[in-house]
Order: sequence, then structure tokens, then C-alpha cells
Amino acid sequence: MNYTLNNLPERESKPRERGFTMAMDKGLSIREVEDFLEVAGDYVDIVKLGWATSYVVPNLQKKLDVYRAAGIPTYFGGTLFEAFVVRNQFDDYRRILDKYNMTFAEVSDGSLEMDHGQKCEYIQTLAEQVTVLSEVGSKDAEKIIPPYMWIRLMQAELDAGAWKVIGEAREGGNVGLFRSTGEVRSGLVEEILTKIPFEKILWEAPQKAQQVWFIKLLGANVNLGNIAPSEIIPLETIRLGLRGDTFSHFLEMDNNPRRG
Amino acid sequence: MNYTLNNLPERESKPRERGFTMAMDKGLSIREVEDFLEVAGDYVDIVKLGWATSYVVPNLQKKLDVYRAAGIPTYFGGTLFEAFVVRNQFDDYRRILDKYNMTFAEVSDGSLEMDHGQKCEYIQTLAEQVTVLSEVGSKDAEKIIPPYMWIRLMQAELDAGAWKVIGEAREGGNVGLFRSTGEVRSGLVEEILTKIPFEKILWEAPQKAQQVWFIKLLGANVNLGNIAPSEIIPLETIRLGLRGDTFSHFLEMDNNPRRG
Amino acid sequence: MNYTLNNLPERESKPRERGFTMAMDKGLSIREVEDFLEVAGDYVDIVKLGWATSYVVPNLQKKLDVYRAAGIPTYFGGTLFEAFVVRNQFDDYRRILDKYNMTFAEVSDGSLEMDHGQKCEYIQTLAEQVTVLSEVGSKDAEKIIPPYMWIRLMQAELDAGAWKVIGEAREGGNVGLFRSTGEVRSGLVEEILTKIPFEKILWEAPQKAQQVWFIKLLGANVNLGNIAPSEIIPLETIRLGLRGDTFSHFLEMDNNPRRG
Repeated sequence: MNYTLNNLPERESKPRERGFTMAMDKGLSIREVEDFLEVAGDYVDIVKLGWATSYVVPNLQKKLDVYRAAGIPTYFGGTLFEAFVVRNQFDDYRRILDKYNMTFAEVSDGSLEMDHGQKCEYIQTLAEQVTVLSEVGSKDAEKIIPPYMWIRLMQAELDAGAWKVIGEAREGGNVGLFRSTGEVRSGLVEEILTKIPFEKILWEAPQKAQQVWFIKLLGANVNLGNIAPSEIIPLETIRLGLRGDTFSHFLEMDNNPRRG
Repeated sequence: MNYTLNNLPERESKPRERGFTMAMDKGLSIREVEDFLEVAGDYVDIVKLGWATSYVVPNLQKKLDVYRAAGIPTYFGGTLFEAFVVRNQFDDYRRILDKYNMTFAEVSDGSLEMDHGQKCEYIQTLAEQVTVLSEVGSKDAEKIIPPYMWIRLMQAELDAGAWKVIGEAREGGNVGLFRSTGEVRSGLVEEILTKIPFEKILWEAPQKAQQVWFIKLLGANVNLGNIAPSEIIPLETIRLGLRGDTFSHFLEMDNNPRRG
Repeated sequence: MNYTLNNLPERESKPRERGFTMAMDKGLSIREVEDFLEVAGDYVDIVKLGWATSYVVPNLQKKLDVYRAAGIPTYFGGTLFEAFVVRNQFDDYRRILDKYNMTFAEVSDGSLEMDHGQKCEYIQTLAEQVTVLSEVGSKDAEKIIPPYMWIRLMQAELDAGAWKVIGEAREGGNVGLFRSTGEVRSGLVEEILTKIPFEKILWEAPQKAQQVWFIKLLGANVNLGNIAPSEIIPLETIRLGLRGDTFSHFLEMDNNPRRG
């Protein structure tokens, strides 16, 4: 840090199991990736190439190289997995993970109907090849999954070999964990946390108010994802109580967040 | 493309008469233009220097050179044309198009009252010098033009020599084709399409939900404009059914969009 | 300018006491700063490193050097001042201003409760070291300060040695001067202007509609702040009546804005 401020919440350091941040790259140029890493490299733990953008970007291999050289792992968004599966090209998908030397992959069913046993088999199969993040929640705002079912799905996916489970929100933060207004389904989150360990969950929370809500509930070291590259520094200040939104929160807690 | 996915909608290739994408540059630096072209050069067909930003940016000539070297045509936003006309400086405007070797120009009346015969004369005059895009629709949210009048204006402007007609939306996507909430005036669009050929229209659609609406209605190869540089890659995935919003749409249509 | 348009509102030139623009840098890379200055260097008068982002960015010294070389002064956001004060580290704060050769500083109380006499003492003390901008208004949307009190606080802070007073809005533009919807508290602004000189106030106005509102009320040369780097060029066109929003305003006024 550039100077000393007393009594800040303690942050985990890399490699982090808790308090990690997943950023979303939806088509950065090589220089933009370098700029992003110059500023936020210490604060970002993993980068998702959003949905199937990796299919169309012309700089894929070079971009993966730049992230790799900086020690930041990457993975393709779950929609790409689904796009292969829906076309009966799962084996092609596995070959592509190998071709690009991917060490992580996401398994999701946000855009299609998939038998949950089948989904868990995909997790199991891919877990032999890479570290798997699996995602629960639909991209369709109309499909509401009740809390007990979120818990059941998350637990089954962890049991099948997922490293962490992701709570769906999309780039917009208006489905899955959130109402269409962006408001957190707080009862849902609280209920999930009674059963699934805090550090096993990666909450997608692209909007500032959502990040603030999670940090106030769970402390500086909650896992958050779908963060825009330009919002990584702002998020880090929120985690540290150095932005208006959480300024008094950590002071009042005497630097002792509930689970942070 | 970086790998093979079966059964995607077919996309037109450059130079495109259909399925083309107009991006808006509202003040990019030279490096930002280069970064934009590195990533999106294959997917963007024309770039508008938004409204009269070309008056104030200090890097105009150099920027035009960079776009030209990449084979991407550019044009000045219609508000610049209007700013010259309202000051009785139309001849100056023509000289400036020459000075900068512009091959396209926009004729609009979004910010002033102009007799429509006069507007068509401007189109006719400029069409001898450059390729003309003309725009219908007011920037004033209060001015509602009924559908039959949109059609009459569009047809007259095409007859006067406009290459394509643009449906107004502004950078925000909250006037003209859209309600102030951003919702599409769907009846208006449907009625326009009964009379004006699909490929003659460029729909300004800066918001994702608007792009999705047009692509679902008109297929992968609808002409869309006012796209932010960072949204060109996301738009291309929506066109291809590779983002959640259109994921099932093209699958269900058996790759056969209504007019795409 | 790149060409001649007649009858534009006159803009102050640098160094400006009126019509100046404060931009917010919330974590730009060095190249992004260079790009920003290439495009907007002539139009931006001062840059705020938003809230306490200067604590976490890894490129602080180098970034300050780049701004300095371009002749653009910078200052740390008021939340950083508050973060030091609330920890009884005010002397450390003063040392940090020296360490980084800062010539400006902000004194605010947006995130904590501070006796106003105490705040004015901080202003007085810091004014011996740097040029002070002081800020009135809470970051808490629930805390409504009545107009007579805004005036009293602003006057006292100017008397204590503040160079200008800032009207609070945050990055979002939804507190302080504005309702949670972003709408201007117009009665508040009008009342403040009956007592505090126009050129002593810097209005935070991050949203376009807010900028338009102030420019229509106060002319091209109103002081505006919390402008995103990519919005400096658009703002300049609004000041000049070269965007739809103010296009007719300056024409109708015969280039004679109320106080611009």
C-alpha cells in the first residue's frame, strides 16, 4: 500500500480461498488487458472470458498468454459450455480446453434445460481435466428457484467435484440472486449460508450496491464475481472500508466482520 | 473464428449491405481506436464520430487516418450537419467534408425544425459529394412522430438519394424508436417494415435489450447502430445466438431467422 | 478547434476560475491517463483521485508524475481525508500531502459526523499547506440538509480559507444536490446561488441530464465535477451548444447565457 492507515480489515493475500475477486473480460484488447493488470493485478484472482465471447475475439491465444504470464488464471463463461453441449459437441469442448491449456472451466445451465444428474456428470468428467466452477441459477428472470432447491443443487455440484459454486447474476446483476431491479434476494442468500460453507460460494455481484450488501453481511473477504475490470479498484476500497458505503461499517465492527 | 460450433446463424461478410454494425466514437484516443479495431475491426462496418465531438477533439485528422488505414469508413454525426445549417454555414460544411476526405455524411433534423422538402434537397446535394445516411426521428422525447409519417419521411429521403435511413435513438436509446424507458415502440417498427425494405434501415439500438429485440425480430443480419466500442463483441455474440438472450432463439428457429 | 462554427458561447481558457471541469480518476492505468490527456487535456482543469483509491492503486507516484507533466493538478478525494481523521491520523495525512507534493486537498465530512467548527479548523490548517477544496453534503441519501444550512456551511468554509466549495453528488449523482433518482434539487441550487458567488462553487454532476441542467441555468462556464474521463469531450460539446440537449438553448439566448 502507498501509506499506512490503521485499523483496516485484514485482507487475505494470494492465492486466496476467501476474499477472492473474479473479473469479467468481455472483449478487451491486449493493451487493455495489460492496463487492467497493471492496476488491478494484485486484487483480481481469476478472469472469466464472458459467456461465448472467446468464440469471436480475434486475439484469444495472445490474451490468454498475457493473463498466464501475469499468473492470473482464466476460464470460458458457462454459456460457451452450454453452446457446445446443446449441439452435442461436448467432446469438442474438452478438446478446446486442452488446446488452450485451460486449467479452469465453468459448468452451468443458465440458458438451457438440463437434467441435474447429467449436469453433475459433466462436472465429474471435467473435474478430471480442470478445476471446475459450477453455476446455479437461471439467466431467465422468470425462472425462480426456491431456496431449498438452490441449496440442494449447490451441494450436489460440490459433491460432484466442483471447486466452488457460483450464484448467477449475469453481467447486469438482475437475475438469479437478484430481483430484476438489482435488489438482493436476501432471504435466499441467508438461507443458502445456513447450509453451504461461505468460502465455497462465489457470488456474482456486478452492481456496487450488491457488492456493498455482501461485504456488509459477510466481511471484507467474501468471494465476489462478474466485476468489470474498471471496478476492481473501487471494489477493493469497499472491502477495506475506504469508500463511503462501508466507511463506518468496519469502524463500528471494531475491525471484526462477522465472517470476513 | 477460434473453434468450430455447428449450426450457427449465417453472418454476412464485409462489405455488408445487411447485418452491418455502426459504432459510435465519442472521443477515443488514437490508442483506444487501435485497441477497438484490434478487437472489433472485423465486426464493425462504419464508425460515427458522435454528434459534434469532431469539433472539439484534438486528434481528429490522425484518428480519421487510423480508421482509414483499417478500411473502416467514418462520418460526422448529424448534429454537426445541423450546427452548420442553423448558422447558415452549409457551404462551409461541404468544404469540411472535402477537407477531411469524408466519403459519408449524415443528414438529420433531430435538434431543429426543418422543412422536409429542404431536408431532401440537402440529401440530394450532399449525395453528389458523398454517400448519405439520413436520419428520421427527433432527439426531443416530447415530439412523437406517428408511424405513417415515419414511413413517408423515410421513403422521401431514400428517394432523394439517401443510401440508408437511420431510426433515431441517441446515445441513450430513449427517444425516437424507443420510449423514455428504453422500451421499443414495437408497433412503429413493425409498421415501418411493411413499407421500407429491411436492408435500407439502420436501427440505432444502444441498449442490449433493444439489440436483442431487433435480432429476435429480424435475425442475425439486421443493421444496428450507436453501439459503444466495448459492446461490439457482445453484440456479435447476440447476433450468433451465443449469449443467453438469444441462445435458444436461433436453436428453436432451426437456424432460420425470419429475415436474417 | 478543427474548423469554424459561428456564434458559439465563449469559453474561458486555462487557467480558469469559471467554467472549469473536474474529472474523476478511480483507478486509471498510466497509458489510460496518457490517452485521457491526449483527448481531454485542454478541457480538464483538475483531476480527483476518487475517494481513497490512491491507497490501493499500485501506480500512484507515476500517475501523479504524468498528470504533473501535463500541467493538470490533482487531489485525493475527501474520503481519504476522512479516513485519516477518523483514525486520529491527521498529521499523517499532512505528511502524505507533502510526500506526494500535492498542491490541492479536499476537506469533507460526507461519511462521518464532524463538528463544523472542527471542520473549519481543518480547512484553515490545510490552507496553509495547500489550496483547499471543501465539500458540503452527505453521502448518506437519508441525511437531508436544508438550503439555509447549505449556505451557512458553504460560507463558513469559504471564510475558513477554502478556495472553492463542492456540492456533493458522489460518483453516481444520487445524493446531496440530487434526489435518489438523480433529479436536481433545483430549489436548493437556486437558493444557494442567491448567497454564494457562482464562481466559488464546484457542482458535482456526473450524469448528463445534471450537466445539461446546470449549463442551461448557469451557462457554458459553470464549474462542474465528478466527470468520468470518457465524458469530458461530450461535456465540452454540451457547454458549447453542440449536442442535442443544449443545441437550441444557446441559439435562443443569442449567445448570451445568464451568467456564462
